[in-house]
Amino acid sequence: MTASINADRLMADLRDLADIGKDRTGVHRPALSPEDLEARRWIAGRMEEAGLSVSMDRLGTTVGRFPGVSQAVIIGSHTDTVPHGGWLDGALGVVYGLEVARALLEAGETDGLGVDVVNFQDEEGTFVPCLGSGIFFGEIDLESMHSRSDAQGRVLGNVLKDAGTADLLHSVDPARHVGYLEAHIEQGPRLENGGIGVGVVGSIVGIRRFKATAEGREDHAGTTPMNLRRDAGAALLHLGSEVHRRFHALGYPDTVWNTGSIGFSPGAPNVVPKSGELIIEFRAPSVDTLDSMEAEIRDAGEWAAGQSGAGITIDRTADVAPTPMDAGMVEALRQAARDLQIAVLDLPSGAGHDAMVAARHLPSGLMFTPCINGRSHTIEEDAHEADIIRGCQVMLQVIRRLRATA
Amino acid sequence: MTASINADRLMADLRDLADIGKDRTGVHRPALSPEDLEARRWIAGRMEEAGLSVSMDRLGTTVGRFPGVSQAVIIGSHTDTVPHGGWLDGALGVVYGLEVARALLEAGETDGLGVDVVNFQDEEGTFVPCLGSGIFFGEIDLESMHSRSDAQGRVLGNVLKDAGTADLLHSVDPARHVGYLEAHIEQGPRLENGGIGVGVVGSIVGIRRFKATAEGREDHAGTTPMNLRRDAGAALLHLGSEVHRRFHALGYPDTVWNTGSIGFSPGAPNVVPKSGELIIEFRAPSVDTLDSMEAEIRDAGEWAAGQSGAGITIDRTADVAPTPMDAGMVEALRQAARDLQIAVLDLPSGAGHDAMVAARHLPSGLMFTPCINGRSHTIEEDAHEADIIRGCQVMLQVIRRLRATA
Repeated sequence: MTASINADRLMADLRDLADIGKDRTGVHRPALSPEDLEARRWIAGRMEEAGLSVSMDRLGTTVGRFPGVSQAVIIGSHTDTVPHGGWLDGALGVVYGLEVARALLEAGETDGLGVDVVNFQDEEGTFVPCLGSGIFFGEIDLESMHSRSDAQGRVLGNVLKDAGTADLLHSVDPARHVGYLEAHIEQGPRLENGGIGVGVVGSIVGIRRFKATAEGREDHAGTTPMNLRRDAGAALLHLGSEVHRRFHALGYPDTVWNTGSIGFSPGAPNVVPKSGELIIEFRAPSVDTLDSMEAEIRDAGEWAAGQSGAGITIDRTADVAPTPMDAGMVEALRQAARDLQIAVLDLPSGAGHDAMVAARHLPSGLMFTPCINGRSHTIEEDAHEADIIRGCQVMLQVIRRLRATA
Repeated sequence: MTASINADRLMADLRDLADIGKDRTGVHRPALSPEDLEARRWIAGRMEEAGLSVSMDRLGTTVGRFPGVSQAVIIGSHTDTVPHGGWLDGALGVVYGLEVARALLEAGETDGLGVDVVNFQDEEGTFVPCLGSGIFFGEIDLESMHSRSDAQGRVLGNVLKDAGTADLLHSVDPARHVGYLEAHIEQGPRLENGGIGVGVVGSIVGIRRFKATAEGREDHAGTTPMNLRRDAGAALLHLGSEVHRRFHALGYPDTVWNTGSIGFSPGAPNVVPKSGELIIEFRAPSVDTLDSMEAEIRDAGEWAAGQSGAGITIDRTADVAPTPMDAGMVEALRQAARDLQIAVLDLPSGAGHDAMVAARHLPSGLMFTPCINGRSHTIEEDAHEADIIRGCQVMLQVIRRLRATA
């Protein structure tokens, strides 16, 4: 018998999991909520039934160890969600791990390289983004995060005291763990629009965020001649428009940007704005591209200041470096899809995932599966069953390839 | 003896009036506040001392009738202020009227055309903009305004009940009143910058205000490719920037515009804005120019929608027609300044005044005097004494001219 994905079992597990914290067509399982812990216990139970050796730590991060092996690839993701989120985000990657390990175990393919399944806590940042993977890979000290609180003001340290979880914290085992794989819905429309079965992520993009602050002078908008104004509002409108224009003109592949937030003060129709703020964010797969885009913003800021008479200062408020995935894992994922005659697209990940943390510690790979209309982080999030099943088959195939070369 | 302005008396009256409701270097006399009513009673007393026949009506609008004449020009303005406003705005025009009438009376120039002095209530719109002049000229029915409230929620009808004012409402006397004159600080920098003694207003500009609403789609700003977005934020940035660019390019004299208020929803740095609003306002002295500018906004809206994938709707939320001043009054003001060898600038008024209401009912003229740094509606508002005195001399001179031709 050769290990194979049981499509009905895979879909049933995903559907059953989606009933925990169900919110209309989505789920509501913020990290460490009762629903989140219930989902983690349910997944732990399914891992045990599959024959994995399971333990949940203080955070709720759960490891299912493959029995009888000295080395294993981790397949991981997370079952916590954003508020009123989708049923697949995170859950898909965990259930893929469960199904792949289960398929190997039931087929007796238990020698050599195993598959440890990890369900990380709080990837979505209810308290701290990628908290579980950050602790697992030793990047975060939990004590230093105890005072962090969620949007409702609940403090992490207190929530953990009340959670009734075990007094241990899982961590990576460098002698055992030889790689990390994660699957996730794309959260974008490129696979669906291209009719492509899986995406292989070459890099998780870097993100830079800027606060552009304009300082002008408050004037009567009826009585002050245009050439004497120092118009903080016009400054930011020009800056924002120009940034969009220039970034389009640069034509860099795989870059995105956003002007998501703006405000003028005092904000009255008949008062020339005295000051204002515009938030500009952009993402790119390489540091060189990030640097070029930043240079354009700063140059556009000088131009916009000259157009408006207001002063503009541009502060970088966030800077996340791009995270390349492991070349060997990327190639293994590509080959696995080709083995199954499934079309593959190389693409960057525009969002962070636990794989971003893992990639700094283990050879890591990240695979995307198509979702419907690119929707995620909403109860409208969905995917076609055929795409869900196909993705799991690719995940099993890449494990097969890694086992063959281990 | 020939009537002449008593500069010391003029300045003393302005300074004494500024002590009522004094707020640091400015005044705080919102319409129908105790300070406002005290100021009105003080001005009424000064009118009586000058020999005018004075009565204050239910609103606080005060008329000082010139004795012994059957016809009079009204010189008017208002002593109510915006919160924490300037000491000259409004007050200047009322005290000019007082001083001109007083100068005529003390010189015995009492035959023929007289000067009635009017101190209108609530020009600043604490309850209703130009409430006093609107009622005086029959444009507003007071009963219909009783439910209007100020920013603190005080209701006009109740405030009037408690004010203890007389049970009468003043109105224009068409048989008696042959014209209206108002003086006001410029509220802008053109006279000061040009070293010019007085401005003569040809027209109070028309104002149109628009709410531009963009409707797009909320998307993840990291995972949604740029070409698939419907970005309501980019739409409004492009629209606002383009409107500034086009209005500058039109090069119409005496036009001003403002983009004073903007907001995006949901307003998060990493979420493509689903919707947004931008308020655009512009002012011009002619309807043709207003129409041309409106056409540019609508055309720019279509262009910006095409750039961003979002829909843009542009709603006109306010439309105030330009108010031309009377050609005879404009010429009389110009000639009066020339008589005194004072440099004159023709200019529009970018803000509304009681003269805007009056001009629909009487031949009306509006004169501006220089102010410092164009500041008004703030406690920083100020003017040089020499400019204040010179303006009052021009006002007396124009009355002299009108009396000569009456």
